[in-house]
Amino acid sequence: MAKGITTKEENYSQWYNDIVKKADLAENSAVRGSMVIKPYGYAIWEKMQSVLDGMFKETGHENAYFPLFIPKSFFSKEASHVAGFAKECAVVTHYRLKTDEKTGEIVVDPDAKLEEELIVRPTSETIIWDAYKNWIQSYRDLPILINQWANVVRWEMRTRLFLRTAEFLWQEGHTAHETKAEAIKESELILDVYADFAEKWMGMPVLKGTKSANERFAGAIETYCIEALMQDGKALQAGTSHFLGQNFAKAFDVQFLSRENKLEYVWASSWGVSTRLIGALIMSHSDNNGLVLPPKLAPIQVVIVPIYRNDEQREAISKKVEGIVKELKAKGISVKFDNRDTRKPGFKFSEWELKGVPVRLAIGPRDLENGTVEVARRDTLEKETLQMADIAEKIDHLLEKIQDNIYQKASTFRDDNTFHVDSWEDFREKIKQGGFVLAHWDGTSETELRIKDKTKATIRLIPLDGKPEEGKCIYSGKPSKGRVVFAKAY
Amino acid sequence: MAKGITTKEENYSQWYNDIVKKADLAENSAVRGSMVIKPYGYAIWEKMQSVLDGMFKETGHENAYFPLFIPKSFFSKEASHVAGFAKECAVVTHYRLKTDEKTGEIVVDPDAKLEEELIVRPTSETIIWDAYKNWIQSYRDLPILINQWANVVRWEMRTRLFLRTAEFLWQEGHTAHETKAEAIKESELILDVYADFAEKWMGMPVLKGTKSANERFAGAIETYCIEALMQDGKALQAGTSHFLGQNFAKAFDVQFLSRENKLEYVWASSWGVSTRLIGALIMSHSDNNGLVLPPKLAPIQVVIVPIYRNDEQREAISKKVEGIVKELKAKGISVKFDNRDTRKPGFKFSEWELKGVPVRLAIGPRDLENGTVEVARRDTLEKETLQMADIAEKIDHLLEKIQDNIYQKASTFRDDNTFHVDSWEDFREKIKQGGFVLAHWDGTSETELRIKDKTKATIRLIPLDGKPEEGKCIYSGKPSKGRVVFAKAY
Repeated sequence: MAKGITTKEENYSQWYNDIVKKADLAENSAVRGSMVIKPYGYAIWEKMQSVLDGMFKETGHENAYFPLFIPKSFFSKEASHVAGFAKECAVVTHYRLKTDEKTGEIVVDPDAKLEEELIVRPTSETIIWDAYKNWIQSYRDLPILINQWANVVRWEMRTRLFLRTAEFLWQEGHTAHETKAEAIKESELILDVYADFAEKWMGMPVLKGTKSANERFAGAIETYCIEALMQDGKALQAGTSHFLGQNFAKAFDVQFLSRENKLEYVWASSWGVSTRLIGALIMSHSDNNGLVLPPKLAPIQVVIVPIYRNDEQREAISKKVEGIVKELKAKGISVKFDNRDTRKPGFKFSEWELKGVPVRLAIGPRDLENGTVEVARRDTLEKETLQMADIAEKIDHLLEKIQDNIYQKASTFRDDNTFHVDSWEDFREKIKQGGFVLAHWDGTSETELRIKDKTKATIRLIPLDGKPEEGKCIYSGKPSKGRVVFAKAY
Repeated sequence: MAKGITTKEENYSQWYNDIVKKADLAENSAVRGSMVIKPYGYAIWEKMQSVLDGMFKETGHENAYFPLFIPKSFFSKEASHVAGFAKECAVVTHYRLKTDEKTGEIVVDPDAKLEEELIVRPTSETIIWDAYKNWIQSYRDLPILINQWANVVRWEMRTRLFLRTAEFLWQEGHTAHETKAEAIKESELILDVYADFAEKWMGMPVLKGTKSANERFAGAIETYCIEALMQDGKALQAGTSHFLGQNFAKAFDVQFLSRENKLEYVWASSWGVSTRLIGALIMSHSDNNGLVLPPKLAPIQVVIVPIYRNDEQREAISKKVEGIVKELKAKGISVKFDNRDTRKPGFKFSEWELKGVPVRLAIGPRDLENGTVEVARRDTLEKETLQMADIAEKIDHLLEKIQDNIYQKASTFRDDNTFHVDSWEDFREKIKQGGFVLAHWDGTSETELRIKDKTKATIRLIPLDGKPEEGKCIYSGKPSKGRVVFAKAY
């Protein structure tokens, strides 16, 4: 066990907090529910952003930027949307401070009250569709495929670093289409992009499906999602993509002249992933020694620690390391040479282990003599001594192997914790134990809420690839045509 | 003159607005003073971000993210800081909306009033130094070299797209150091980074200097800045870098144990550039035909327009163009093949001219026969017919030439509009005419304000490379030891 990290067996929640803190990823700020994302945590987010941004552009999307503030009247235009977000809105009411003449204190200037209050965006459908109204006249103006990288605010009462914070960073795509079919296709395309990113980059297997009416985005006709299983058996929603129908087009009166020369309302999708993914990444792979990062998203993929007793050795090793660093960089591998003279190798080893660097190289005087290097893997904690020849190629290979192993491990865990159950008793037991529980459901919100009430489990998704299967609802006994995925969730 | 663009001779301000609108860069939003940055405008910002981010990292800085909201009490801790920003603060006072029972309308829930109001950051010194307090104990924790990409809000009463908006995007660096000398060195280093970026990437020559006390950042000991001259003879502050002394360390009680084992206050710098740079870019180079972009920041560097009369020609040209596109991309040149069949070549020509694409290629059937291509430069509007052989290399070369020419042209303009004056009469005349006016000043704020009052000119900067020169203040006649730069400014 690494110094200062609670084991996950002892207290999973504390283990998570310890890793976030000890790996220097983020911390709570003085503003209730808001976090400071520290450089190492932010570097992971930058990696994620860069990959996702490339994937969005590859699929024809462009970035733009819309205002942070949304007039209250806009926000209220789509009824179910405002109903869903009203309880967690930060509201700007004034635009000036002044010095109180009596007390000398800085106070809000009562004369600077806004005529209409502004909502700090919790999501941007309303302000964006207000702009789209002027951008769309004819089918020739469609599709609009826009993404925005932004901060949003949702006044959550119970917050946790990365997983649920009052302010978070995310991307939100907002697209406009001629037809229903096209908008649905877009929502599904993005779901595939998200799933690919989760699996191939984060090494995190996900299920794809749609949400039940209860869990749907406020204003959507259909919410697609990816769900991952964390190591404590709880599910985490990692990304959502919404088919919005014509709801926002109607609320903002966005019509276009169709190919048939008729005025029609525009069809829409919206979709997003957030800094929450960093929480998912941590909980998917990390262990009691600290963070474990998949090589493809690790800010530092390889760290090199020199082991020496005197300046002469130090210099000789440094010279050797320079060559290795060059070779690794030439292969596009990000590498750090930890040549701090103020810290002992043991300290460095545990620091980089804590920070989840995938591969650690250690080089001492004997290695120099023998032309070898000690290679340690973060995922398995295995060490081996390798010949220096072709070292960059070997490391490149090893990083791929680690990426693959991390994914396989998480997949095996998920498979081992996915259950098909057919009785209420089994259901309760498996939910209590943790994991994805596939069971029949009668399709009603009423039953779903009762199940939640009794077990804390929610329907995470209705699988997209679910096979039709006749059965009886786990709770009501009424007929069902297929299994849905239940779990307790973050 | 391009369709729909007012000439700058006729109305410079309208010319600017027309270009922003017609080149599809940005538009006003429904929220007073906030803008929507449209995809083409945002693509320019992304280019700027990417280059600057690389430069910051190259000089040892890391990115992080701090909260959007600042508690009012933090904001008030540094007296001159709050005095400087109090009049333009957006204030969050409530955290929930509700449905009014009587009217059915959505209203701010009076029960959800915050105990302490939150300021939407106009700049982040206070929230960041509150965090640094916990990060810094000893000299070993220093320096801290952090940058943040973020949105900020300053409630400006008179706004203009890109130049002055209530919300804008920027980067803000916040560094912490052991010594005064180090913090000053950092402020100057960043000033050089900004100047390099302005000149080498934006093609915009800048002066480097310090601000007079009147124009200094609220909370700074010294404000360094770069100033550029726009085509209407007004100056534009393009970036600032502040030496903050120990002001924020004292306000937030951030002390460290020095190498001499003494408790000392930390030294600080902060620095930023914003989406205002896009406004500067537009005004530096554009003409009455629209936007002119320097190749290094152009989202599309080369556009290819096919000229054909029938499908057969179209196909043959497309095949040829595919090869050219590949060659250009291989050289890292961003290229767009405008093969829309719904638009005529003339329409495309003026559209891309309007959008400032540096190079346009046109290929028709005769070019195919002759192995030629028509090449048009946006900066000079010159056209020539080139042999297709080595076309990528020729274009690459041409882009460099354009980048250089754009800078040279702007430099010549600035030189032609920089004046040394020694009499009050000359001063008034030159200021009225527009340009940088180098004149002697007695060093007092009083004189500076009087000059501003009478001529609208402010001291843009005190040159860093200014030669000592005995003289008499242009206004008061009192002795001066060097010239400062006056201008009317954005």
